[in-house]
Formats: sequence, C-alpha cells, structure tokens
Amino acid sequence: MIITLKKEAPKQEVDKLLKKFENMDLQVTLIQGANYNVFGLVGDTSKVDEKSVLANPIVFNVQRVAEPYKLANRMFHPEDTVVDVNGIKVGGNKIVMIAGPCSVEGENQICRIAQQVKDAGACMLRGGAYKPRTSPYAFQGMGTKGILALDKARKLTGLPTVSELMAVEHLDEFVEHVDVIQIGARNMQNFDLLKAVGRTKKPILLKRGLANTIQEWIMAAEYIMSEGNPNVIFCERGIRTFEPYTRNTLDLSVVPIIKERTHLPIIIDPSHAAGDWKLIESLSLAAIAAGADGLIIEVHDDPANAWSDGSQSLKPEKYAALVEKGKLIAKVIGRTL
Amino acid sequence: MIITLKKEAPKQEVDKLLKKFENMDLQVTLIQGANYNVFGLVGDTSKVDEKSVLANPIVFNVQRVAEPYKLANRMFHPEDTVVDVNGIKVGGNKIVMIAGPCSVEGENQICRIAQQVKDAGACMLRGGAYKPRTSPYAFQGMGTKGILALDKARKLTGLPTVSELMAVEHLDEFVEHVDVIQIGARNMQNFDLLKAVGRTKKPILLKRGLANTIQEWIMAAEYIMSEGNPNVIFCERGIRTFEPYTRNTLDLSVVPIIKERTHLPIIIDPSHAAGDWKLIESLSLAAIAAGADGLIIEVHDDPANAWSDGSQSLKPEKYAALVEKGKLIAKVIGRTL
Amino acid sequence: MIITLKKEAPKQEVDKLLKKFENMDLQVTLIQGANYNVFGLVGDTSKVDEKSVLANPIVFNVQRVAEPYKLANRMFHPEDTVVDVNGIKVGGNKIVMIAGPCSVEGENQICRIAQQVKDAGACMLRGGAYKPRTSPYAFQGMGTKGILALDKARKLTGLPTVSELMAVEHLDEFVEHVDVIQIGARNMQNFDLLKAVGRTKKPILLKRGLANTIQEWIMAAEYIMSEGNPNVIFCERGIRTFEPYTRNTLDLSVVPIIKERTHLPIIIDPSHAAGDWKLIESLSLAAIAAGADGLIIEVHDDPANAWSDGSQSLKPEKYAALVEKGKLIAKVIGRTL
Amino acid sequence: MIITLKKEAPKQEVDKLLKKFENMDLQVTLIQGANYNVFGLVGDTSKVDEKSVLANPIVFNVQRVAEPYKLANRMFHPEDTVVDVNGIKVGGNKIVMIAGPCSVEGENQICRIAQQVKDAGACMLRGGAYKPRTSPYAFQGMGTKGILALDKARKLTGLPTVSELMAVEHLDEFVEHVDVIQIGARNMQNFDLLKAVGRTKKPILLKRGLANTIQEWIMAAEYIMSEGNPNVIFCERGIRTFEPYTRNTLDLSVVPIIKERTHLPIIIDPSHAAGDWKLIESLSLAAIAAGADGLIIEVHDDPANAWSDGSQSLKPEKYAALVEKGKLIAKVIGRTL
Repeated sequence: MIITLKKEAPKQEVDKLLKKFENMDLQVTLIQGANYNVFGLVGDTSKVDEKSVLANPIVFNVQRVAEPYKLANRMFHPEDTVVDVNGIKVGGNKIVMIAGPCSVEGENQICRIAQQVKDAGACMLRGGAYKPRTSPYAFQGMGTKGILALDKARKLTGLPTVSELMAVEHLDEFVEHVDVIQIGARNMQNFDLLKAVGRTKKPILLKRGLANTIQEWIMAAEYIMSEGNPNVIFCERGIRTFEPYTRNTLDLSVVPIIKERTHLPIIIDPSHAAGDWKLIESLSLAAIAAGADGLIIEVHDDPANAWSDGSQSLKPEKYAALVEKGKLIAKVIGRTL
Repeated sequence: MIITLKKEAPKQEVDKLLKKFENMDLQVTLIQGANYNVFGLVGDTSKVDEKSVLANPIVFNVQRVAEPYKLANRMFHPEDTVVDVNGIKVGGNKIVMIAGPCSVEGENQICRIAQQVKDAGACMLRGGAYKPRTSPYAFQGMGTKGILALDKARKLTGLPTVSELMAVEHLDEFVEHVDVIQIGARNMQNFDLLKAVGRTKKPILLKRGLANTIQEWIMAAEYIMSEGNPNVIFCERGIRTFEPYTRNTLDLSVVPIIKERTHLPIIIDPSHAAGDWKLIESLSLAAIAAGADGLIIEVHDDPANAWSDGSQSLKPEKYAALVEKGKLIAKVIGRTL
Repeated sequence: MIITLKKEAPKQEVDKLLKKFENMDLQVTLIQGANYNVFGLVGDTSKVDEKSVLANPIVFNVQRVAEPYKLANRMFHPEDTVVDVNGIKVGGNKIVMIAGPCSVEGENQICRIAQQVKDAGACMLRGGAYKPRTSPYAFQGMGTKGILALDKARKLTGLPTVSELMAVEHLDEFVEHVDVIQIGARNMQNFDLLKAVGRTKKPILLKRGLANTIQEWIMAAEYIMSEGNPNVIFCERGIRTFEPYTRNTLDLSVVPIIKERTHLPIIIDPSHAAGDWKLIESLSLAAIAAGADGLIIEVHDDPANAWSDGSQSLKPEKYAALVEKGKLIAKVIGRTL
Repeated sequence: MIITLKKEAPKQEVDKLLKKFENMDLQVTLIQGANYNVFGLVGDTSKVDEKSVLANPIVFNVQRVAEPYKLANRMFHPEDTVVDVNGIKVGGNKIVMIAGPCSVEGENQICRIAQQVKDAGACMLRGGAYKPRTSPYAFQGMGTKGILALDKARKLTGLPTVSELMAVEHLDEFVEHVDVIQIGARNMQNFDLLKAVGRTKKPILLKRGLANTIQEWIMAAEYIMSEGNPNVIFCERGIRTFEPYTRNTLDLSVVPIIKERTHLPIIIDPSHAAGDWKLIESLSLAAIAAGADGLIIEVHDDPANAWSDGSQSLKPEKYAALVEKGKLIAKVIGRTL
C-alpha cells in the first residue's frame, strides 16, 4: 500500500501515523519527494482500511498495490478451476452451451423447449421461475411451480438446469431441484445471498452487476468462496452505458482479464447484453473466439408470445445454426463445443 | 403506446397484430407514413409487454407514451405526500437533517455521537448495523447488537433513527427498533426486500441504485407502495460514472424531477456521493438550494479511527457549521431547517 | 414523429400547433388517450426541430419514428458500400488488416516496422504524425516530417497508409501523402473537420467518440457524405465507462448494428479499446467472428521504448501469430483475411 | 511515481529498469513486498511515459503520485486567479451572470434579448454564431453575420459577449469582435484549437467534455496556459451518463474540486446539462450555493420558435425571477451577484 502525504504535514503527525502502521506489524519505507512524501507499506495490508487512512488530514492519497482478493486470485492458485455440474465440466476444453426460455411458463412449455435446445446442441437448460422485473405489475415468475416444472424438464432430457435465486428463503428448493444457482446482476452485491449460497456446495453462476467493476465482481466471488464454496462461474451480461441502442454494452475484454487474474471459468450471456435477437449470433461467435468457457442464450419457440424477454429470444432453428457455427470457431481455437 | 411497423410488413401479419390488440380492449389508430406505418394504442397498455411486441418481426420500434408507474405518479395524486416519522414530517416545509456515523461501533460511540449531532442541529440519527461491504474481509457491522445500541441512542436523545436493512430475515428487528428502514443502493432492485418492507407501514428510505435510471427508481417505490406502504422517501446518493475523482457523481437534477413526476419526498446523501468530507458542505448547501426535503450526512467524532467510511465523515463541529449555513439557505427559499 | 400532448392543454393551443404542422405540409393524425393526446406526424419531419416542439408548454414528449440519417441509411441504399483504398477493398469479403506503430518516430522506424507488419500479414500501414495527447508536455507527433516518413514507408512496402488528421490546415498534406484519413475519437464531432474531409474524395476512417452514441456516430458519417464524399469507414475503438481495468470498453455489438442500419464498412481498433497488449489477440479474434470488416492494431518492435502507447502495442511476432489465427476464424465465417 | 514490479521479475531486468530511471536523474527507492516489489521514483517524473513503463513485461502497475498539471495547479499558485472581461471580474466575490439565446438569429433578435437579459440582471451576453449540431441538416449558425450582430448587441447594451469558436480559421474574427471565446464540450480535446486560443490573451470559457474526467479538463486548461494565456474559466455543463431523463448529468462536485486543485474560476451551465427549462432554476440556485463563480443560462423570449435549444431556454421573466433568488443565496454565502 502506497500512502502519499502532504508535504506540509507536521512531523509529529507523520510520526503518529508511522507508529500506527508499525503497531499493525507493517514495515514502512519513507520516500521523500519534492512536493509529497510517500509511505510504502509492506506486510498484510488487507487489514488497513483505505478510507480511514484517507480521513487523516495529512494524507493526500492512498493506493493499493496488491489485489484485495485471495481465494479467487490466480497468483495463489495458478491452475484453472473446472466446475463440475452433474458431469458437465465448466472451464475445461469443451465450451458449455446453456439455453432455454427467459421464464418457465408451464410444464409443457419448458419440457418442449428443453427438448428443442437439446436437439439443437445445448448441454444445459436455463429457465427462470423467480423473475426480477422492473415493474411490480409485470409477470413475476411461476415460483415453486416453475422450479418443479424445470425439474421435470431436467429428468425428461437429462440436461442439468440453471435458474435464478432471488431470496435466501428459496435456497432449499434450489439446492434440491436446480443444478446451478444463478445470482442475478441486480443481486451481485446482495451480500447475504452471496454468503448463503457460499454455504452450499452448488455451482454458482455469478452474473456481473450492471454497474460493477471487474474488481467488485471478483470480490463478490470471494464472498461465496470465503464461505467455503469454490464452485463459482462468472457470467458477463453487459454493463450499463450511455448507449441506448442495446439494452446493455457487452464487455468481452473481461474474458482474458478474468482468466489472467482469477482461476475461475467465465461464460457470456449475449441475450441480456444485447436485448435484441438479431445481435445474438454475432456476439456469441465473438465470445467463443475471445475464449469464453460457455454461452447462456435465451431460446423460445414462440418469442412473440413469450411471457418475458421475447424480443431477445432466438427461435430453436436459429439457435441450432448458431451452435453449428460455434463448433467451427471452437475448433479453430483448439476447443470443442 | 406507439408501435412502429416496418413498411414491408405483410398485410395479414399487420391484421393479426391489430386483432391481438383489439382483443386486449385497446383502441388502435393506424397512421401511414412514407417509410413506416404506426399503430397508436389507447387504453390500459400496462398489460402490453413491450418486449413481446418487439419480438414480432414486423415491428421496428415500440415507445410508451404513459409513465409505467401509477401510485407514485403525481398525475393521479397531485398533492405532496408528507411522511411522518415519530412526529417529524419528511416532505413538509421543514428540511430534515439526518446525521450520524457510517457504522454503529458500540453503545458508547453511537450514544455520544447521537448527542453531538443533536446538539449540532440534527433531528434524526443514522447508523449502520448491517453493512454492505465490497470485501468479505472488511467489517460487516455489529448486527443485532448494533440495532440495540442504536435504539438506546434513540431513547437517550429522542432522535428517530434510520438504519439499513439488508435481508428480509432481519425485518422484525427493524420494525421493532428502527424508525426509518433504509433500502441501500445495492438493494434498490432486490424486489423481495422491497415487497417485504411494502407489507409494513414503516417509513422507507429508498436509495437510488448506482446505475439505476430515475424511472427504475420510481418503479422500485411502486413495488413498495403496491404492497400497501405509501411511506416512501427517495434518497439520491450519486450514480456511477467514468469520473474517478469522486466516489460517485451526485445528480441533483433528480430533486425537481422527482417533485414533478411524483408526490413523494426526496432527500440527498452527499457523503456517499462525494466520498470525501471536503466536498460535503458545498454539496449540502446546493441540495438545499435545489429544493431537497432533507440531508443525510455521515458524522463521526474521530474519522481517522472510524470503522468504515472515515474519509467521507464530517466532524461534529464542521457539521454544526453546515447546519447554520443550511438554515440561511432554507430561509431564502421559504423553508425552515 | 409522435408528439404527446398534455391532457389539460387548452383546445386553442392544440389547434395552433396543429395548424403550424399543417403549414409545414405535414399530415397530422390525432389519437385521444385517457391521460394524454397524441399527434402522429407524417411527411418530411426532418425539418421539425424536436427541441422547439418540446419548448411548447402543452407538449409532454416528442419521439422520432424515422432515423435522422439518409445517405448512410441502408433503407435507402440496400447494397453494401465497398471503399477502395488503392485497390484494397474495405467492406468486401476480405477482412482488412491494418497495423503499425502508434507514432511515426522517424523514417527508419516506420520503414522497418512497415516491413515487419507486411511480412506478418498486414495489408495497410498505420502511423500517427499528429498526435492528440492529454498532456501538452507529452510528445505531440513529428508533424510533416512524420507524414513524409510514412509516405516513404508506403513507397517502400506498397502498403497504403492511415494517419490521423487533427486540423483542417493539414488537409492538403494528407490528401497528397496519406491514403486513408483518420478522424480521431476526440474529433468525431469536430464538424468543421468533418465537412472539410467531406469535400475530398479520400477514404475516411471515422472513429467513434468516447461518449458518442451509435446514432451520433452515423450522423457524423452523414456530415462527411452530405458534402459529397461517400467513402466512410467506421472504426469502433471502445467507449468510456466506469470500468478502470481497461482504457475503454470495446462495444462489439456495433458490428451487426452498423451493418443493419447502414451500408458502410466497419473495422475494429482493439488497441485503443483495451490499452493493454495482453488483451489484443482475444478481442481481435472476437471482432472477426462478430463480422468486422477489418482490424487496426498497434504494432511496435520495441514497445518499452515506444514514444507513445507502448503498453498496448503488440510485437511483430505476436501480431503474425494473431493474423494466422484470424485467417482461420475468417474462413469459418466464409471470409478471407 | 510508484511502479509495481512482478515478484518473478529477473534481477537483471529490474537492474536495467533501475538504471534507465537513474539515467533520467530520478532517485529510486526499492520497497520489497511479499508478492510485489515496488519502485518509488522521486524527481521530475513528468518526462516518464506511464504507458512505456507499463509496456515492460516485468511491470505490473504504474501509479502517479503528483498531479500532471503545473500552471493550473493551486499547489504552485495558491491565490485565486480572477479573469478580467472588460472590467467584469470572473472569479472574484461577485458571481457573474451570463445569459442570452442559444443561437444568434438576427440583429433584431440578439439586440432585443440582450436588453431583456440586461434588464433582468445579467452582466454578460451569450449567443452562438457557429453551432455544433449533431445533424448536418440542422441550422448551423449565422456565422460571421451572427458575430457582427452580437457585436452590435454588445455596443448597444455594454454587455461583454461570449460565443463559441469551432475552428481556428475564425479566430481573428473572434479576437476582434467577441469578449470571451468559448471552447465547446465537443472541442475540449481539440488540441490545435486549444493551442491557438492559448496564443491569444482573450479570456477562454473552457467547457468540460461530455466524457472527460476532471483531470483531463484541467490538462486542457494546461494546454491553453502553456501557450501563454492564463485567462481560463472552467465551465461545467453536464457529463454523459446512462440517465435518459436529462440531456446530461450536471456534476456540481466539480465546483469545490476545481477550487481545491486549481486557482482558476469555474462557472456552471445548467441549460445544456438539464436540457429542460423546468430544471434550470433549481440547478442554478444549487450551483450558487455550491460556490460557483457564475452561471451561463440560455434565455429566449420565444422558446417555441427558437432556431435551436428552445426546450431548455428560459423566458426573460423567469430568468429575472431566478436572478432575484440567486442574489439572496449569494448573500447567504458571503458573495454578491
């Protein structure tokens, strides 16, 4: 940690701060500059609160050198983590294709679409039973009935399932009936929810928040991991920017960054990023080429009558075509799909 | 609702869509343009899902005319709502000053600071017992002990209290011991939490999410109100932008906008917006001049040793000076403080 | 154009506005809603200034239906435009690879690197002679000497060149010595510069501004085209967001969007978007897979001593490896490179 | 400057880098940490290019300690700069009120409105003759005729004038006929234009770019000052964010920040920030309370027929009311207006 001190700081205040750090078992090196003096702190600075240091009137600036995450940090865990979902490996050589409707709309619908996406090449099924909707007047999801319908589709097709958990009180239901628990973008910093899923051993699909930095995202994974659950899969789904054309702006640079800084797998959700089915194929192929470990895509066989997100859902035949192209891109970069 | 159709849309598809809207008891006017045709829909369009309409391949664009909120909408409730907090009126002529430490650090600390902020002119006390922290390794709040210590400070000083609720499971504790329940920025779209506090009658301080539009914010209030609780107080605390100098960018234009579009009170939190105590006075006076109904400000008597957010906390004497200046500004615009 | 009127608008004011539009030869359809009335305007609405209409106190909202651009609009020009740069086709089947140093640092340097990138597979050479630098104390480019050195490298290798024009006064020099004139991100709305290059017939590489929407970007192209120059090539180079990890956030969704809405070619600059050479390969392959018509990449044979942008420059051997992988991706999507 | 080195960096590479810095007359202190080593550089680091240092593969991170600006830096120039505009002091105790139409629309219009804003309390006149418009089909300003009409209004009323310069070729005209040369938001990093106005002695109103950080803005001032012109007035006019309700988001925290970090005056433009006349009074009073040195506000006596920006223009009587309230706020904070 690097602490920049104002040049006019009284010596006795500087000494007091110095002593404070030494009492925390930190080694302090003083560098005297023309306009500022600098403290370089060595040791376990994770216990130093930057904001408290900044509150000291003699301090001009505080900068961390080391990353604040440990369990997710590739520096301390150089090999890739592969998350096992009922035998399907996320983060290995094979790129994982997850597909399904935005919302579970009934047993028939989810079972029918499950079979369609399986036929098209998907290896996992998505479907929302609890839906975060901007309006209280919009369809809020089928709840438990939806979870049970999804479970039925799983048994029918053998596809493991992904569904979003919105509240701790539904956790047991998810542990029993769902294979991958999704933490949605709006809940990326719902720390109670993160801790709760951290106390299970279930694979967690951790979506990036709309306005969260990569570092905050990794820290959210650290919350889950620090409770004992190492099975975290990152999922980029676009960030909020000034651009109104797309629902969000898909940030594909996170793929190489997450792989450099952490050892965890990362998949891409182009559907929520783009908000427009016409952009999905292009962004999906880009994600594979960028090195993503998987794709989660909304597919519906009647988008114009879907109960939610119809405009960003692909029809099964379009999804099948995308999978075929994706296989070729995967092969080029030495992977399978 | 205005639906723009592609010019080349086959007549039979247009008729199908027309029939669909008519079956929903909507009146449809067709406007034929040079390059597009337009449907104007009249009636209760709140049941029409824009994304489903957009999913129809003959549709180019969908635009809502009416605002999607009802209970919060000033159009249907022209007079100002004044929220009563143990006799203190939020949204009336008097500007409400809320102050206190970021975190409750113990009974002594919170009681001492409560008295200090009361002496300085505050009429309500803030203090966090459950803390949303980016790092799982940072202080997470004192929990129930903190809530009880805050309650003690309340009894001692008579100041009503504000504290952040992070999980539904703590709701009962808050209903019993806390006067105003704060929904933090990270939970602005935690819809289960919104519904839960909507089922109480407690005043709710609803912070704007870091990346949430004004409309989404009003819709979050609508979630609370649609469950039966009309006591919502908006709180702006800065939005996330590209500017690194401040923690967030305070958006004061929300004050006249919220007052025009809704009938609910709005207060400003300059501490979390700025993240730097040196900016607080300037932004606080600006907020009063802009017409805000109150200010919530972090005050600590030993910022350099505060357990959280020290760098953005004012000392009591600086806060007292701010209150005095605030009174003069309030008077100029015909209010008291 | 759709104009929403306040319900309480006095009839005589509504009639006045109606008459105003009719005098502009616009057909007006009135749709009466429960809370608003709506005017639908048909005809050439490009002469209607939205802001003036909004200034009318009876108007609640104004929404455009038609896109404001004409010459760039695919609706009126369905076939792809292919820009010819000395025989190299930009926007055709072959993906165009442009490479070279950030700055021309001398004749030897640019000639040497030109040969290196040609050997590695580039078909065009980039090199800045006039450099937009945040600091007045940073290297500002070699100016005319740089342009002449670049010209020498062009003659030596046969590679057409791209260089950034920052001021109208240097235009003649560029027309004479440079093949593609780049308008940088900071000048995307320097309208005098756009008009000036619009009066030439040179191919123009139009970078997207850091905070410009896709529509504003297309309107910038419209400025160039409306002066008579149809040879516009869009270049996405990342937009400014809250994320500090990358220099900017690369927005690849623009590739399918630009291709849907306009008939012009689009290439990608991953170097300025990422600001970090380690991310370039990943983003470059993604761009090709997304359907981009080309890539412009910074290459330097001694990045640690480059006069500018060393940290985002690839070494020639890394660039050569990228080109080889790019060829395979291009083939998969039915293109060459 | 603080340079973080990877722990695994080979000693000989570290020594090479060390030598390089020592050859630049910099003193280097090495701090050895557990996971990183750190170089602390003391001396004139303004000549060190961060991006080149980062390009070295042994370097993990580079952080500047000192601000990169000198002439604008309050550290080296503690007293406030007051810019003199024909006897009107910008940056002194008196808050400067600038008003007028978005565009000069003719001699009659500008002379009439000049008199109206003077009567309402303005002490300077704004009016655009060269207009940066998103669309090439929109009114582009009256050009020289507009400048001459503005000059006439100046002579008639005695109000000094502000107008935007968009291209170096019009500079002479501005030097002769305009009192304050405005550099618009889109040209904040048009470095040739900055240098050109830096070679005059005219007061320069430097608007913040839509997506520019405070530091980049100060560096733009540094461009002007480093050419010899110290008469820079900052003008905040909102930044681009995700919020669609307002045209831009007004960032009032810049007022205390600019005053802390620089010695230059700062004024606020609420008209372009809000884009809606209904928000102007609220934001203007806020700006005065925040400590701004002036306000530049669009005023038009017939907004619904204004040639540009009608929706954000105040009528003269509303502007007069705002001035009266502003005087009271100014008095409270010890200033006049």
